[in-house]
Order: sequence, then C-alpha cells, then structure tokens
Amino acid sequence: MAEYIDQVDREARKRALKVFQETFKMLYDQIARGEPPYMMLPKRTLANTIYDEKRKLLLLGPEKLKRSFLDLNESKKFMQTLLMAKIIYEALERDEYPTIRDLYYRGKHTIIYREPGGRRHEENTWDEQRESDAVIRDIEVLTGLLREEMLILSKEKGKVVGNMRIRSGGDVIDLSKMGHGAYAIEPTPDLIEFVDVDAEYVLVVEKDAVFQQLHRIGFWRRHKAILITSAGQPDRATRRFVRRLSEELKLPVYILTDADPYGWYIYSVFKIGSITLSYESERLATPSARFIGVSMTDIFGYGKKKPYLSEKERRNYIIKAKDADIKRAYELMNYKWFQTKKWQIEIKIFLDKKSKLEIEALTSKGLKFLADKYLPEKIETGDWIE
Amino acid sequence: MAEYIDQVDREARKRALKVFQETFKMLYDQIARGEPPYMMLPKRTLANTIYDEKRKLLLLGPEKLKRSFLDLNESKKFMQTLLMAKIIYEALERDEYPTIRDLYYRGKHTIIYREPGGRRHEENTWDEQRESDAVIRDIEVLTGLLREEMLILSKEKGKVVGNMRIRSGGDVIDLSKMGHGAYAIEPTPDLIEFVDVDAEYVLVVEKDAVFQQLHRIGFWRRHKAILITSAGQPDRATRRFVRRLSEELKLPVYILTDADPYGWYIYSVFKIGSITLSYESERLATPSARFIGVSMTDIFGYGKKKPYLSEKERRNYIIKAKDADIKRAYELMNYKWFQTKKWQIEIKIFLDKKSKLEIEALTSKGLKFLADKYLPEKIETGDWIE
Repeated sequence: MAEYIDQVDREARKRALKVFQETFKMLYDQIARGEPPYMMLPKRTLANTIYDEKRKLLLLGPEKLKRSFLDLNESKKFMQTLLMAKIIYEALERDEYPTIRDLYYRGKHTIIYREPGGRRHEENTWDEQRESDAVIRDIEVLTGLLREEMLILSKEKGKVVGNMRIRSGGDVIDLSKMGHGAYAIEPTPDLIEFVDVDAEYVLVVEKDAVFQQLHRIGFWRRHKAILITSAGQPDRATRRFVRRLSEELKLPVYILTDADPYGWYIYSVFKIGSITLSYESERLATPSARFIGVSMTDIFGYGKKKPYLSEKERRNYIIKAKDADIKRAYELMNYKWFQTKKWQIEIKIFLDKKSKLEIEALTSKGLKFLADKYLPEKIETGDWIE
Repeated sequence: MAEYIDQVDREARKRALKVFQETFKMLYDQIARGEPPYMMLPKRTLANTIYDEKRKLLLLGPEKLKRSFLDLNESKKFMQTLLMAKIIYEALERDEYPTIRDLYYRGKHTIIYREPGGRRHEENTWDEQRESDAVIRDIEVLTGLLREEMLILSKEKGKVVGNMRIRSGGDVIDLSKMGHGAYAIEPTPDLIEFVDVDAEYVLVVEKDAVFQQLHRIGFWRRHKAILITSAGQPDRATRRFVRRLSEELKLPVYILTDADPYGWYIYSVFKIGSITLSYESERLATPSARFIGVSMTDIFGYGKKKPYLSEKERRNYIIKAKDADIKRAYELMNYKWFQTKKWQIEIKIFLDKKSKLEIEALTSKGLKFLADKYLPEKIETGDWIE
C-alpha cells in the first residue's frame, strides 16, 4: 500500500503527529508533577461565539473550560477525549484515512468495572455519533488542527471547473479539461497546490443543476470565471477551497443562491462561518464573499433599479414564502452580519412581499439571460451585497 | 456562444429533433384527415409494470393509453403534453440546456378563457412540478428518448476514478489522474466516448465517504478496478454510466452497500430498475450487477461460511433494525427479483436478528481489511449475490 501514499499526505501526517505529541505532553507533565491531569479547552458554546466586526468572522471567544480527570462531571468527557485522541493518533501513524463515522465505531465499546463493594457496572464509551463528533471538535480546538489536517476524510459534494491547474496526490489536473463533467473537490483541500490560474473571479452556485447548465454553455470560459457548486449547504472542503481561492489567488468570490432565507444562510456560511462550528471560521470562511443574487431587488426593483423580471414573469415564477421562511428571515434580521443597509432592504422586501424565487426562474427566461446578461451586468455594475 | 457547443451535443440535438418531428407528425396527419387528434402512450402504471424474468429487468407492459384532445378527461393532459413537447423542441433548436425545473417554469402560466355564455375561467397550465415531470415522462415513453437525449440536464452526484480514459465535450479525460479528487459524471453519459480502459471490474460504493477512503489508498490501482460512488440512491446518469461499462466494456459490476433493506434497494435500482420509472430500465439498469456486500452472512456467517466479524465486533458495530427497516424487508421479500435462494437467506437472517450494519463498520476494522482482504476475497471466491 505504502507506494501509493503520496509525499504530501506523509508530510501532513508528520505535522499532525507532532502537534498531537506537543498538545498531549502536558498530561504527562501533570502526572509527573503528581497533579491530577486536566486539559484547558476553548469553550464551544453559543455564549462564547463572537462576531468579529473587523475581520467579519464568527470566532470562538476567550472563555476556557477545564476538563479534569478527577472531576466527576468531566471525567467521562476527559476519557472520551483521550480515547479519541489515541484513535486518531494511531490512524495517523498507520497511514489510515478514517471518517468520523469510522472513528465513532473504532472507539465504541463497553467498559465493565466493579465498585470497591463488588457491584458490577457497564458503561459505553459513547452511544451515538453525536458524542464522538463532539469530542473530535474538542480535539480540533485543543490542537488547532482541522480534522482534514488529521487526514480524516468525509463525503464531498463540491465541484469545480475553470481555467486553472492544480496539483493533488501527485497529479496535475487541468480544471478546464473536464469535458461535460467536473472535478469533484477532495476532502483535504489544504493539500491541493495551485499550479496556475487564468481567471478573474470565482462564481459559486448553490444548485448543482444550474452549475451543470452554466458549465455546459461554457460560461466560465467566456467570462474567465472559476465555476463552483456547493450542491446545497456547503461542506467544509468546498468552503476551504473557496477561501483559498480568495485568500491566496486574490480572486473576488460571488455567491449565487435562490432568493430566500435558506439561500441567504448558505451565503452567510460561506462568508461568516456557521454559528455551531465557529472555531472553523478562521480557516473556512471567506469574509470578502459577495452575494450576487438572486436578490429581492432583482425581482421587484428598488428606487432607480429596474427589476429583471416582468410583471408576468413574477406572476409565474414567484413562490409564496412559507411560515418557516418568514421565521428564518426574522432570525437572520437580528444577526449582526445581516445588519447592513442592503441586507435590511432585502429582508424587508421579503417580509413585505412574502415571496421567494429560485435561480431556475432566471434560467427559464433563457440560460443565455442568466449567463450573458444577468451575471455579467451585476458584476460589472457592482450590484451585489457584501 | 455557439463556438463552445461541441459537435457531440449538436448531433444529439439533431437526432432528438428528428424523433420529435416523426413522433408528433401523427397529430398533423390526424387533423389533415379531419380526425380529432390523439396520442397513444404506453401506460406508466404499476399494473402495467412487468418483471421480465429472462432479461431480469422491470419493464413497461403492453397496455396503451389513448390521450385525446376531444376527451374531457384527457384534454388537459393532451394540452400539457403538447405544451411541454413544444418547450423541449424549442430548447433543442435554440441550443438550450434546460433542467426539469426550468421546463416547469417555462410552461407555467395561466390561461384565461370565456364560456360561450361569457363566464370567465382561469386555468393554470400546471401548478406543481409533479405535473410537468409526469408529462416529461410521457414524452420520454412516447418518443423513446430519455430526457438526457433531449439535452435536459440535472444535478449529478456520481463520481468515478480508475484506469480509464474517456472523451467528453471534446476533452480526453484520464480518470487515473484525478489526484485525491474524482471525476464528477456528466448529466448526459450517453455522449461520453470510452477511449481506453485497463480494468478488471467495476466497484460501485453506495457511500461517498467510503469511496474517498478506498480512492485515497489507491484501491482501484492495486486491484484494477473502476471505482464509482452513487453517493446514496443513484441518479440516472450514474446508473446509465454503470450500465454502459457493463454492456460495452463487458466489465463485471459489484455493488457495495450498507447491510440493510435500504442498501438492498439501492442495489436493486442499479440492477433491475425502479418500480415507478420502469420505462427507463431498458437503458439504465445493469441486469448482471452483483451484490458484493455487506451481506448478513458476512456478519453472522452461514453454514460453513465464517463471519468476517468477531462476536465482540458484532456487539459494537451492529445497529438494531427499525420498524421501517423490517417493514421494508417484508416488502422486498415479495419482489420476484429477491426470490432467489441467497436473497431469501439474507432477508431471513435480517428478520431473525433484526440487525443492520454500515460499511463503515468494516473500514473501522481497518481500511486495509476492507480494501485488501474483504473485497478481493469475496470477488475471488465468488461470494456475491446475483
């Protein structure tokens, strides 16, 4: 097997193993000093999740948690954390590529013990993946390593095409030579090397089917774009890949979603990060990402801006918002990163009209309309939302 | 735009346009003869869905439906069918690549008409995509063209890697040079040309994450396999791609799923086709596909066969079947294509033990166990189910 594992992976393993050794050495030191072992972890709670207005990112705050072996409330979690760290460490050493589901199974077993008096107890290391996943996240914040850097793999939905060559696993891949198919982004996008690129911006499309359409008519070729789809809610690899395009290649990033609170949320996950996993934002979010549409002002117009849809098209294409959409919109309205003038206008029009619209409404006006009028015009005139 | 549309697509359009002209000419002829226009359609009903035991396929039976313009019960459907046919025909002529969602939007409008007496009526062409989708299926069975042959695109989940080169959209793509990523299969797999291949079999993995793992350790290279994932329930393009590998390249196809009725169903969709869309089976199903596992006899053993899992592993990995799983198993038990000796044993063990297992239970024993023991051994000893 060894001959097929490339150098890039080998070096990533070495880096991760070293960080693990350094991180968990404190436990040896504590025990050597005769102290009860404990770990200090950044708190992954909503209360300790802070929106950094300057950097435009959701980040973990300064609060820490002491997870001590001899604290009855924390001792199970302490042992779970060490068990998981051991499993990940061994997988790194043995050239394995576990998934989070694997790690759950690998650690799952029953511990049988007796009280001093003799009463027998059974306790499972964990019962549900929710528990083992939480421990993996703790290890991420404790070590500062993303799970991808521990060579933990996962399913991936993101795809990309464009005038760009990348190096991955020893191969140089030309993303402009994918035919009618596309390049499926790997689970460890930090190990990708950008060889060369000839593009002016990145367009991320929420919907895979619309990605297929834009790809098929050569949109990215004509408009010098790197075309990406997240196929719905973006996974970590797609977010990290987009972030790297923005950060390292200085390409502007535009996000195209349906005109509804769910689409806005997808945009905000790309841009700001997700609330529950704020510790990842620092690496996965793209604070400069722009919402290109479909916006409420595209549908209804606003002030001097003319709508892209006629009265008749609106009648046929608009979908009535559901109660859940409206509830979601009120929630988003309160998030700091939606409290800009343009976003407040968007949300207000939505709540006023109680209407949403899919990207497909634009392609049904003609794919050329979307590809060669709507998108280029909006980019050219700066008609996006930060 | 035209320069980017390749010759293969242009020829596909020509073929489809010709079939449309020939199919719908009958309506002109009927009108010219002074007859009320009608179409004869194969019935897409459960009662007219037949399991062909010889060909091992679910197929549409001989029953036909007369859809007549002047029949009050059928006239709306008649008009919907013609409206959709017109929209698809125009899209073909205009080098468009619609999706089924587009087609729904394109046709959606309100018809206003007055009774001879003067009373005003409003009627929508269709209200839900369910209606327009049904009409697209009718046009598929009427013309004998799959919607992919009408250049209708859709979202795609299937991925592939292996020692194989294909031609798509003017590019030659080497599926062995995808790095850690993969090739995302295009929505129109009939337009792919197989350039050359050096593989002994096809392995289709239900789960994308397990595909990532097997890919990452070079499974397909060591075992001369074409490695594919359907990422859950397979879409049409993945099914068609697998069928073409089986039919044109004569490669054996093995399907690896979780050990549960949902996994068995995924297998049967690949092999036999789906009950609701039986008209597609003739093109999309792979009747020779083999279920490689995970089988109940792999978990528990059977007769002389030893299980792959120890008692302790079973205790940690097995998941209790849910009521829905058990109900599903009873349903599958009655399908003709599950009425073979081996399948009945599988289902009986499942119902007896009320236990299911995920593929990840095997990778958590070590990815090498799955890649270099379990799979090669089962293939070598013929331990699969037809």
